[in-house]
Amino acid sequence: MIILKIGGNILNKPDALAAALDYFAALEGPAVLVHGGGRKASEVIAAMGMEPKMIDGRRITDAATLEIVTMVYGGLINKQVVADLQARGRNAIGLSGADGNAVLAEKRPVKTIDYGFAGDVLGADGSLLWQLLDAGLTPVMCPITHNGKGQLLNTNADTIANETAIAVARARPEEQVSLRYCFEFPGVMHDIKDPESWIPELQPSSYAAFKAAGTIVGGMIPKLDNAFAAVAAGVGEVIIGDLPALQAGKGTRIIGGS
Amino acid sequence: MIILKIGGNILNKPDALAAALDYFAALEGPAVLVHGGGRKASEVIAAMGMEPKMIDGRRITDAATLEIVTMVYGGLINKQVVADLQARGRNAIGLSGADGNAVLAEKRPVKTIDYGFAGDVLGADGSLLWQLLDAGLTPVMCPITHNGKGQLLNTNADTIANETAIAVARARPEEQVSLRYCFEFPGVMHDIKDPESWIPELQPSSYAAFKAAGTIVGGMIPKLDNAFAAVAAGVGEVIIGDLPALQAGKGTRIIGGS
Repeated sequence: MIILKIGGNILNKPDALAAALDYFAALEGPAVLVHGGGRKASEVIAAMGMEPKMIDGRRITDAATLEIVTMVYGGLINKQVVADLQARGRNAIGLSGADGNAVLAEKRPVKTIDYGFAGDVLGADGSLLWQLLDAGLTPVMCPITHNGKGQLLNTNADTIANETAIAVARARPEEQVSLRYCFEFPGVMHDIKDPESWIPELQPSSYAAFKAAGTIVGGMIPKLDNAFAAVAAGVGEVIIGDLPALQAGKGTRIIGGS
Repeated sequence: MIILKIGGNILNKPDALAAALDYFAALEGPAVLVHGGGRKASEVIAAMGMEPKMIDGRRITDAATLEIVTMVYGGLINKQVVADLQARGRNAIGLSGADGNAVLAEKRPVKTIDYGFAGDVLGADGSLLWQLLDAGLTPVMCPITHNGKGQLLNTNADTIANETAIAVARARPEEQVSLRYCFEFPGVMHDIKDPESWIPELQPSSYAAFKAAGTIVGGMIPKLDNAFAAVAAGVGEVIIGDLPALQAGKGTRIIGGS
């Protein structure tokens, strides 16, 4: 059982998206695709004469922005990806967190920054996803959630992928769940300028050592913290890499243990 | 088994939409909601500095317009309605025609008018809809379809409702399917200015007589032709009325026979 997350580096380039969908559509057995938003939401915001609001690289979701991300993530990107997978013979079905109550969230509490209608995930419904998979359907999840009271919320796509992987693993502990993050590097890198320097495998102890040595820094840390949380919660493995790495069975494999 | 279609007269007014969703959410047994697009697509088109293109009241769907209707119908309206139904305790799941291959269409052939990416429905998948309904899910369908080759298409929501009703009736002939069109009048009217003049029941013979007498004219004729096609194809009844009429078990009931 494979969960693949694709982000802006794929969604912004038609050729890269086509290659990623070829790879995903050909995966054997049950699979779930999670997509982010890419640049399109910012383009639509600009086309409507608004300013994208970001703080530290994170989008501030006011009411007008929520409408646009709901349109772009839930409508434009999700429906086109579903249609593209149908064309590849994969019977895809698009889901926001509201659909089938797949992912319940709460509006992020305001501390120093008010992120607006940003959703923090409370949990994904693994049983629903298995029910759809058992029916031969391939869920395609967009990063829009809801709070169960009629409020849609904008949610980080990595978090959707992570929580979904945890939920399907918990719902069927006998299944081996592989969560794959397709990003812009061949893996977690010793040296970001040397494409050969990817780390084949990380366990909690080696991860701690790399962090202590300053090899793993910045934005990789929350990503890897989430990955280790997923394997601790029952996900079999998390693999991080670019599309060629994933296709070749390479990338950085994050596993449990010590 | 009830299929309810709501259009612009409901979607454009928050109070009317809330009342229609209250009615729909409280329906007993399996139900499917089909929604149109309302004015929102034209608003977004205008906000992006484009001109809505219409000929004889029908939208011309060029590539940019297709992007916008996909965003508005498949994203904004569909996800908000799903979230609103979740808030009412109904486990809704949004579907375009691409999702689960629910509604397959073909691009409308160009005759005198090129409608662009307008989709003529080839058929809906009644088995898929029953599968979702049996799983306790309530499909919410937007008027975006696909051609199975990766092309999304803009489709008339009345047609989606009609074809869906026919497909679920064919997939389970033992079920009584009731197709309900929520529109702006209490029913098909003798006199459009007299709200008491609604016709309680139409059969093919009385419909022919009303048409011959000039009582039923204009835009009601394609709507009723579709309704009679649905009952001829196995749908138990079609009811046309406004929300108060539907709530009161009134409206014009279209049935088969002679």
